[in-house]
Formats: sequence, structure tokens, C-alpha cells
Amino acid sequence: MPTTEAPAATSAAYADLCALLREAGTIDSIARLCSWDQETDMPPKAAAFRAEELALLSRLGHERLTSPRLGDLLAECEADANLTADAAVAANLREIRRDYDKATRLPADLVAEIAETASRAMEVWKEARSASDFALFRPWLEKSFGLARRKAECLGAPAGGVLYDALLDEYEPGVTSADVERVFGPLREALTPLIAEIASAPTRPSRAPDEVKVDRAAQVELNKHAAAALGFDFSAGRLAVSTHPFSEGLAPGDTRMTTRYFDDRFTDSLAATLHETGHSLYEQGLPKAEFPGQPLGRYISLGVHESQSRLWENQVGRSRPFWEWMAPIVKDRLGPGLARFGVDDFYGCVNVVEPTFIRVEADEATYHLHVMMRFDLERLLIAGDLAVADVPGWWNARIKADLGLSVPDDARGCLQDIHWSMGAIGYFATYSLGSLLAAQMWETAQRAIPGVEAGFARGRFAPLLDWLREHIHRHGRRFTSAQLTERLTGAPLSHEPLMRYLESKLRPLYGL
Amino acid sequence: MPTTEAPAATSAAYADLCALLREAGTIDSIARLCSWDQETDMPPKAAAFRAEELALLSRLGHERLTSPRLGDLLAECEADANLTADAAVAANLREIRRDYDKATRLPADLVAEIAETASRAMEVWKEARSASDFALFRPWLEKSFGLARRKAECLGAPAGGVLYDALLDEYEPGVTSADVERVFGPLREALTPLIAEIASAPTRPSRAPDEVKVDRAAQVELNKHAAAALGFDFSAGRLAVSTHPFSEGLAPGDTRMTTRYFDDRFTDSLAATLHETGHSLYEQGLPKAEFPGQPLGRYISLGVHESQSRLWENQVGRSRPFWEWMAPIVKDRLGPGLARFGVDDFYGCVNVVEPTFIRVEADEATYHLHVMMRFDLERLLIAGDLAVADVPGWWNARIKADLGLSVPDDARGCLQDIHWSMGAIGYFATYSLGSLLAAQMWETAQRAIPGVEAGFARGRFAPLLDWLREHIHRHGRRFTSAQLTERLTGAPLSHEPLMRYLESKLRPLYGL
Repeated sequence: MPTTEAPAATSAAYADLCALLREAGTIDSIARLCSWDQETDMPPKAAAFRAEELALLSRLGHERLTSPRLGDLLAECEADANLTADAAVAANLREIRRDYDKATRLPADLVAEIAETASRAMEVWKEARSASDFALFRPWLEKSFGLARRKAECLGAPAGGVLYDALLDEYEPGVTSADVERVFGPLREALTPLIAEIASAPTRPSRAPDEVKVDRAAQVELNKHAAAALGFDFSAGRLAVSTHPFSEGLAPGDTRMTTRYFDDRFTDSLAATLHETGHSLYEQGLPKAEFPGQPLGRYISLGVHESQSRLWENQVGRSRPFWEWMAPIVKDRLGPGLARFGVDDFYGCVNVVEPTFIRVEADEATYHLHVMMRFDLERLLIAGDLAVADVPGWWNARIKADLGLSVPDDARGCLQDIHWSMGAIGYFATYSLGSLLAAQMWETAQRAIPGVEAGFARGRFAPLLDWLREHIHRHGRRFTSAQLTERLTGAPLSHEPLMRYLESKLRPLYGL
Repeated sequence: MPTTEAPAATSAAYADLCALLREAGTIDSIARLCSWDQETDMPPKAAAFRAEELALLSRLGHERLTSPRLGDLLAECEADANLTADAAVAANLREIRRDYDKATRLPADLVAEIAETASRAMEVWKEARSASDFALFRPWLEKSFGLARRKAECLGAPAGGVLYDALLDEYEPGVTSADVERVFGPLREALTPLIAEIASAPTRPSRAPDEVKVDRAAQVELNKHAAAALGFDFSAGRLAVSTHPFSEGLAPGDTRMTTRYFDDRFTDSLAATLHETGHSLYEQGLPKAEFPGQPLGRYISLGVHESQSRLWENQVGRSRPFWEWMAPIVKDRLGPGLARFGVDDFYGCVNVVEPTFIRVEADEATYHLHVMMRFDLERLLIAGDLAVADVPGWWNARIKADLGLSVPDDARGCLQDIHWSMGAIGYFATYSLGSLLAAQMWETAQRAIPGVEAGFARGRFAPLLDWLREHIHRHGRRFTSAQLTERLTGAPLSHEPLMRYLESKLRPLYGL
């Protein structure tokens, strides 16, 4: 697969600019390895010094990315008509400018304070969550949102946007909260009655296959088999274990992911693997070696990244054809405890819809109510329309209203997510944007690739991956997420494809 | 355990100097993590970019360690009588000066050429060894020794020494080839007849326990159990797997080691683990957190490092009391295939003496003939008294003379070691220096710690470790290896303790 139409134009300044980005990108890759190791393999007593290593790498990277020399080279390139006439170079320069302006707008002491606060707040959050003690975390939550507000003020709200949009723009460039609201509003209106219907449905699938105890080593092999079948290149990556599954594109030729294992619930482990494989296939498909450290070698946004993970986890991994392929493999590899189940048992098990307090355990339908609630809450806090002290009450009322559940304690309520303690504020919406985009591109893919879904039943996933490589992965950050969505699906992002996907799958399963 | 008598004196310049070393040390730690990952976990397609990461880190570290600012601060500290009156600070400054002078004497382009040559020569060496094709490797061996000679010329021979000594001094500071010759000569004279006697001995131990197939997962657990019993802190370290066992002190609180596994030969895997545990106990005992990036937090020399690995592998791990402790554990954990063996079977198995072509497979006695031969060969090549083209002939004649073996091919002859391709020339002698020092300190330890060896039979290793911590580990590079040897054992390094150790163990086993 060729990369995005390769740049033809160049200049001495452009070459120097690319060399500077390459060095910053190398430092970033090293930092990613340090983080990966910290999450997967680092002995506990190494933690203090690892923080020092990461702080040094962060400073070395930041020095390069905010250097006046980079600014000078960039300005020289932007003034060079020969360069800007080349569409690939122009896209690269547009994104380099965007990153440079953002990086230079943040004072170094604010960046350092945010990093230090995050590191300390995460420790307090862990303690507060385990004790379900909101009062303990409250001053840190106030500090985190205070710093996020200062950061947003430095970055500046986009034209026609609110302060919060400066934060959202960090994760989903070019998208404002009004844009998000335009799809979240109708999604909420359509989802709520469907969830209510399901709650009182005449039939419901069973979770019985997930109650069977299964050997962990066999689960590991099953997950590797599935990831490889989807197209994950194990000679350029790894599958490891961590408490919270994640994936990380470390460097060209080096994409790593983790999953988690239980004694039962093999479908949880498999779904997490498929999800992370989706992220990793995107990382492995980016032209990183061709554009080292450059935007053209990088992913577009968290929303687009999440569209890739959700597509493979849900549209592929929770489809019936997928389970036609997977059921015999599972029964062959995971032992006799699963022998009594058929395709429909597995297919039903992975598509149970049931409200829960915990976002990361939520199903495909109720999940978005969790996200919308966080999106609303963040905006209230940043706008100063809600006090941090009132978060638990607000949270619990909203869960009651949206899901009909009474939150038993803050650990299972407003203390459940790590994000705010990390300073990742403005992030949550991208999870649902990813699902929406996945559903929308899936409708396009089904039209564009004859028999794509039927092929899953025979373990044929390459046609879908090739299509994603061609239309998304190889372009890096050449297009914004809005441009990509239009270009790929012929329409702006909408709630309708996701609702059609959920309705058509869930109604038959629930006898509706 | 307190560190070496802590420095009391300080100054602004000394604080700045330590801060600079701390940053260089942090970069070095990051590079060690990158190397560790490369050897243990990195996917193959990541190799090219990893080389770029390591080259960048090497440059960033070298810039700091050769900076004029470091030189200025160092000179200011050396001129400060208040600082130099403090023995710990004076030792630190002495070693910082040594490192700085060495680093600044090597031109950057020579350092880069050596690194690049090593990276390419290692690839050619792998191919040449696997094809047993000396002609293929020959130009690279010429280049490696040519570069080593240039390096030695830049570093300069020490007073009264030959050119080769500048290389040896890189690995064993303050020791010349004449010093080495003074112990290697009599060692050789004493070893050769003992090996000859063993070759025609009336009885010999059997390797039968190593012919039993043993589950790998059980071997992993056994090795971890042994390492932990010796004192390895798993909350500050890891035991992983690699083709060639090694250990690496990555950072304060982070010491990692590997071993290898076969389906049989569990004692090979265990011995490698004990060896690497010895290195790792030294690393875990160094005051790295107190003196980050400073000589006082670092090991003395490769010879002293090797003394720690050999002591635990051999004096401890090949002793009869150790096997009194280990035999029931092995029989309990490694399954019924080993049930028929007793303590003496295991003890005999790990003490078989038998000439082999391959240094890394050699026993405790013949091993040193392999090392001496490489030491002699390196000196001939550096002095220009032997042509690279004549290496195979010279090698094969020496193996015939020393061990009575006919080398079947260069893969099992002069192509067997990776060291020269890596540019590690001047290194081999430290292996035997380590064994000599281990035997000498073991005699002292037996006098100083009542019942130390008998304690092994009850799994008591802490008295020995505490003694090593007290007399060696906590001092970092405060003393040179010669000073340490004298201070610890009351005598300069000699061949006699090693010979007494070998004679007293091997004569009874071989009925001599």
C-alpha cells in the first residue's frame, strides 16, 4: 500500500524542519517505550526514577518542538509557494503549524505544573477510589479543573466556540462542543427509548458462556490467533498483559498492546484484544517510517483512533458471521467446558445489554449515556456552572435519570475514571465519536466491499483492513476528522448509522 | 546498610557537577532500558528505529559527559581544598576526572565510527559464524582491531604500560597486562597438570541429572525461588528469558536479568540464573539512588562485577552444602524424573570437568585456558605481531596444545565469541580476574563469617550477602579493584586461592 500521495516538493528549510521533527519524534518514541515498560514490566521500586526519566524526555522533546529554530524553518516553508503548492507538504505544514502554535502558547511552568499535579493526583485518586472517599480527591479535582481552565485560556477558544472547546480540540482537532452536541442530542433521543424497550424485552440472551472457567494460557493463544487473523503483524508488535488493556504505537515497526485475563469471561478478554487490535492496526498502517515525527505519519484524532478500535471490536467482533468463524475455534482451543454452546450462544453472550454503574463495563448501547454525562459534567465544571463539591450529587442524579440505577458509592460513581486525575479533560466525547464514525464507515464499507461481512464467517478480514489502509491509515493526518468523514462516507457525522446498526442487531436478539 | 561513609563536604560547583552527572545518568538509564527491551521483548521490525533511538541517546549522553561546563566545574571542585579533604568526595572527583579525560580524549568521529562498525560487524559476524566462514568476517575483524588500536592511541598507554593496556584499562581500571600476566602465568602452570590428571582420573561424576526432561514453567519457578533465596529483590528487578543470559542494572530500583531454558539440562539454566543473580545482587547493593550518575553509585570494574557472579555461581552454587539445600527442592518442584538422584548426584553433575571447544560451555577449571588464549591473541593483534589472516591457524594450534582438541571448524573456533565484532577488545581477561578475586574473597569470607558455607545447607545466604554489601557493594567506585582486593583480603590478587579451591573440590570428585 503506497502512503498518501507522497510529497514531491522539498527545500533545504523543509529538510531541516523534517530532521528536527525526526529527532523530536525519536525522543517521543523513547518516552513511549518507557511508559509501556512502566505499565507492563517495570518493578515497583523503579517508579520514582522512571518519573525522572520521563520528565527529562518530556523536557528534551518540548525544547525541540517549541524551539525558535523550528518556528523560523516553519515560517520559511510556509512562505515558499513551491512547497505550499504540493498538497501533501501543505497538509504537513498546516499540522506542524497547529502543533507548534499549541506548544508555544503553553508556558513551560504551566506544563510542568500540570504534569506534576497529574502525577500526584493520580496517586490520590487511586487511594480515594479504593476508599470511596470523594472528600480526599476533591481538592485535587478542583486543582485539575483549575489547571485545565488555565490551559484552555492559554490555548484560546476557537472562533465561535466556548472555552471548553480549546480542551476538546486537543483530542479532536477542529471539532467544537456545538459540533458534538449536534450528534449527541439526537443520539440520546433515539437511544433512550431503545434501552427502555430492551429493559422490558420479552426475551434476552444469556451470559452462560462467560461463566465457564477457562485456562489462561489457552486464552492467550486464542487472543493471539484472533489478532493475527485480523491482520496484526506480530513481527512488528506484541500482545502483553496489564490490568487495563491499552495499546501504544511506540515507533515505526513497533506497536504493542495489552489485554487482561480472568478465569472465566473469556469473551471480555477477547473483546479487549479485538479493541486494542483495532487501535494497533491503525498504528501499523500509518506511514511512520516514511514521515518520522511528522504529522503525515501520525493518527488524526482520538475519535478516529477509537473508530478503528470500535469497528473491529463491535461491527466485526460482535457480529454473527464473526462468531460463525470463532465458535469452532473457541470450542477447539478453550476446552470441553464450552462444548455445549453454539454460534448463537456466543453471539448472544457478547451482545447482552444491561445498565451498569461502570462505563468500561457498559454494553454498546448504554455506553454512550455514560460518555454524554461526562461530556456534560466537564462542560459545567469548566464553565463554572457547577462546583466540584456538587459533583457526586449531580452524578448520582444523572445515573438515576439515565439508567435507573442508584449509585451505591462514589467508587462506583464519580471516582471511577482515571482521566481527570491525569489531567485528561475534554477527552471523553471522543469515545462516542469513535463509535459513531465506526458505524458510519461500516455502512460505507458494506457498500464498497461486496460480501465483507459474510467473509468474516470464513475468517476473511483482509478486505476490510485493506479498505481501511487505503482510505484512512496511509494518509496519516493529511485530513481532519471532519474531512475524512465526508470524504469516506459522503456525509458529515450523524447518529443515524449507529442507531441503525444497534436497532438491527438488538431488536432480533431481544424479540422486539 | 549505610552507603560508603557519606560525603560531608559540598559546594555550589560540586552540586552543579552532581546535577549534570544526574542528567547524564538518567540518559544512560533510558538507554539501558532500550537495550534491555531490544534483547528481551522488541519485535524484529523495530530494530532499525531502535538503533536510531540508541544513537540519539548516546549522543545526548556524550554531549553532557564531555561538555566544557563539566570540565570547568570539575576543575573548580578539584581546586577546592575543603572538598578534596573529604575522602568520599575526593574518590568521586578522582573517578569523575578519569571518566572525563577518557571521554574527551576520544574524537567524536572515532566514537561514531566504532559504534557504526560494531553495529555492522555484529551482523556480519552472525552470518560468518553460522556459515563458519572466517573469510567473510576477516575484513571486519581487521577493521575492529584497527579501530581499537586508534582508540588505544587516543587514550594513551598508562605509564610503564603497552598500547594494549589502554584498552584493558577501559574494563579493569588501573590494571595493566603485566599485572594480569603476573597471576595468569602461575595459574596456567598450576592448572594444566590438574586438568591433565582429571583427564585420566580413575572415577568421574556423571551428568545423568542433566539428561532428564523437565517442564520449563517449573524451571522458571525454581530459578525464581533460588534467586530470591540468595537475596535478589524482585520488587526491584525482573528475571526474563534470552538466548544468552545477561543482567543489566537499568536504574535505581531496577535491576533485570535473564536466563535460558532447555528441555533438559536444568542445572545449566539454574547456574546461569545464579551467575546473573550474583551480578544483580551487586547492582542492587550499589548506592545508586544516593549518588545518581556518580562514580560512588557505580560498580568498580568488570573484574569485580564478575567476582560477584562467579562467587554465587561457583563457590555457592557448585558447593555441596548448596546442593544439600537444593536437592529436595529440585526433586519436589521438577517432577518425578529426578526422584532417583541424591545430593551427590547433583553435586557431581554440576562439577564435571571436561575440555570443550566453546568457552561459554567450559567448566570451572578449563575455562581459564580459553580466557588466557584470547588475552594472548588480542595482545598479539594489537601489537601487530600476528596478522588477522593467521588467527584461525593460531587459534586451532593453541586449542590443540592447551586442551588436546582438534577444532572442527571456525564456528567452534575463532568465530565463537561476539565480543570482537562488538568492538569489546581488552575485555576477556576480566572473566578470569573475576574468578580469581571470587576465590580470594571466598577464603576471607569463610574466615570472617563463622559457618557461612554450612549455612547454605539450610538456605542461609544472607550472612554472605550482608558481608558483600558491607565490604564491596555499598562503596561503589570508592576503591579501585586493586585497593579493594588488598583491603578486603589483605593481599594482592593471586592464583593460589583459586587453585586451592579447585584442588580441594575436584580431587575428591575425581578420586585423585
